[in-house]
Amino acid sequence: MSAFPVRHLAIVGATGAVGRECCAILDQRGFHADRVTLLASQRSAGAVINVGGADRTVEVLQPADFEGVDIAIFSAGAETSRRFAPIAVQAGAIVIDNSSAFRMDPTVPLVIPEINPGDLDGQRGIIAVPNCSAIIMLMAIAPIHGRFPIKRIVVSTYQSASGAGARAMHELIEQTRQHLNGESIRPVVFPHPIVFNLFCHNTVIGPDGYNGEERKMIDETRKILHAPDLSISPTCVRVPVLRAHSESINLEFDRAVAPDAVRELLCRAPGVRVVDDRVNNRFPMPIDATGRDDVLVGRIRQDASRPDGRGIDLFVSGDQLRKGAALNAVQIAEHIATGIRPRVSVAQ
Amino acid sequence: MSAFPVRHLAIVGATGAVGRECCAILDQRGFHADRVTLLASQRSAGAVINVGGADRTVEVLQPADFEGVDIAIFSAGAETSRRFAPIAVQAGAIVIDNSSAFRMDPTVPLVIPEINPGDLDGQRGIIAVPNCSAIIMLMAIAPIHGRFPIKRIVVSTYQSASGAGARAMHELIEQTRQHLNGESIRPVVFPHPIVFNLFCHNTVIGPDGYNGEERKMIDETRKILHAPDLSISPTCVRVPVLRAHSESINLEFDRAVAPDAVRELLCRAPGVRVVDDRVNNRFPMPIDATGRDDVLVGRIRQDASRPDGRGIDLFVSGDQLRKGAALNAVQIAEHIATGIRPRVSVAQ
Repeated sequence: MSAFPVRHLAIVGATGAVGRECCAILDQRGFHADRVTLLASQRSAGAVINVGGADRTVEVLQPADFEGVDIAIFSAGAETSRRFAPIAVQAGAIVIDNSSAFRMDPTVPLVIPEINPGDLDGQRGIIAVPNCSAIIMLMAIAPIHGRFPIKRIVVSTYQSASGAGARAMHELIEQTRQHLNGESIRPVVFPHPIVFNLFCHNTVIGPDGYNGEERKMIDETRKILHAPDLSISPTCVRVPVLRAHSESINLEFDRAVAPDAVRELLCRAPGVRVVDDRVNNRFPMPIDATGRDDVLVGRIRQDASRPDGRGIDLFVSGDQLRKGAALNAVQIAEHIATGIRPRVSVAQ
Repeated sequence: MSAFPVRHLAIVGATGAVGRECCAILDQRGFHADRVTLLASQRSAGAVINVGGADRTVEVLQPADFEGVDIAIFSAGAETSRRFAPIAVQAGAIVIDNSSAFRMDPTVPLVIPEINPGDLDGQRGIIAVPNCSAIIMLMAIAPIHGRFPIKRIVVSTYQSASGAGARAMHELIEQTRQHLNGESIRPVVFPHPIVFNLFCHNTVIGPDGYNGEERKMIDETRKILHAPDLSISPTCVRVPVLRAHSESINLEFDRAVAPDAVRELLCRAPGVRVVDDRVNNRFPMPIDATGRDDVLVGRIRQDASRPDGRGIDLFVSGDQLRKGAALNAVQIAEHIATGIRPRVSVAQ
């Protein structure tokens, strides 16, 4: 892919949890654009965010905003993306979309730069950032799949409040305070209390009994790995954690795979950090993953339920706002801007 | 089994989280003993607990305490059980042991009264209460296994603080307060911060990479189901929940099994309540399981990763202190005392 000069960058949904993280990551990684426009809904307009060394006022999102924009990073939900992304593309921008709106569109690439950067080749238009749970799982399993093709995945998630946005994180904190004070709890963002509780991911349950998040993990994993027949059974669960998702992953192969071979692959994988200290019982934890670019992977072991050696168990934690959303979007923007593969994470 | 009169009942570890729950459950279920002796370590002696309508002072545990005791329920950890249970048996008591000390002893029955009450037949001496995670999983899967033999289990747990005792529950509350106040957090009971975090169960990791809790789930499930070759891969995780454990369970069978057939079996199973409301996205949650006798089971669905129909996924929540420990112990005591199978739970 040839380099693509970024004169004008727009951030849509700049005041949300992912939008703010995008702004921070652009600065942390030294991403340069001559001009940065921050956009949000009427409710959030007027906020001031510092990007590229300058305080910038967030403006109300309007169709005319995309004139002259080279790259627009959308993090304002599927409805906003469905309405404004085609307008931005029409105006000549490349849209990097954090929402689910276009992910399964066969004409839209769904990209994790460490895994399938080739899917960006020749693309203009809309580029989709995958679902956060799918990204965090894939960072750990794609390097394995490249060497030992995975046949089947059983995964259970431990998903943080941040996946439902800044208001959900606030709700977890507020409910915690209410619980400690003996006050009654009235969930607003989540359908159930989240303090000292956990529940099935709050997306629509399909006729097959899988919720929307689980369906995304299945469909998006297959698309990203170009493996339409890969077998996956996810169970997606919301837990009272602020901003890193964890996942317990069971992998099945067609032949025996040694844990040491998996560990070696993961030690070399970009964007992955192996945390697998059996002596000190130190493995991936959300508090260690929070604010980091790398996805932490550990508990790498032979599946005890498969004496034929054809199973591997893993546990991962990754920052939902960073690699699960904002970082992945910025990495795509870097890829487009520089025409080279993204740098291995720097903010460790 | 013939009836066994309970003139004298002893509770060892009466001031702990499980011991206190035992006292409450004995009263709730109207369990009668002519005399009740409450025992604990020096540190906790002198506390007063109301059982059987009378305030009783907790005494320091001594070897001579078991003279004349018919049933002694031990909930004071493996070390205390290893030291005092043989003394109690020598003195003529039946010991119901909540610790892990004797569970895998081939001469000791390991019993969930709804599942393998026959293992109590003719037993005096020590009777072991299984590990809480094993009990909560088995309440859901044993009724299925009885009709459709299970070949393989992949399970990931979401375990509450109560499994590590009253001090651990206190630590979760205290750390939460500290976090909200911006104070620094110093874990004492758990090896890592538990507030807004989760981690691998804090037991020793074996050479195969499985932790002690996972090993218990494997070994005890096989013993209770009399299925020494059953294949199981557990991942046991501690989460910031107060007192109910949840588990995401994937089951594999030798032939196709329909979710409706599973649901029907579970609707009829004693000690189980099916909570599987797809329309309202209401499934088992720790806050709903807390304080209940029944283990909640839901998210019953065909495993999407097995087009041959040979897989079922489930999600369960059960009160770790009740069915996971104290209730199961009292049910065993009832079984011994009355010579009949335990009543189906009443405290709903």
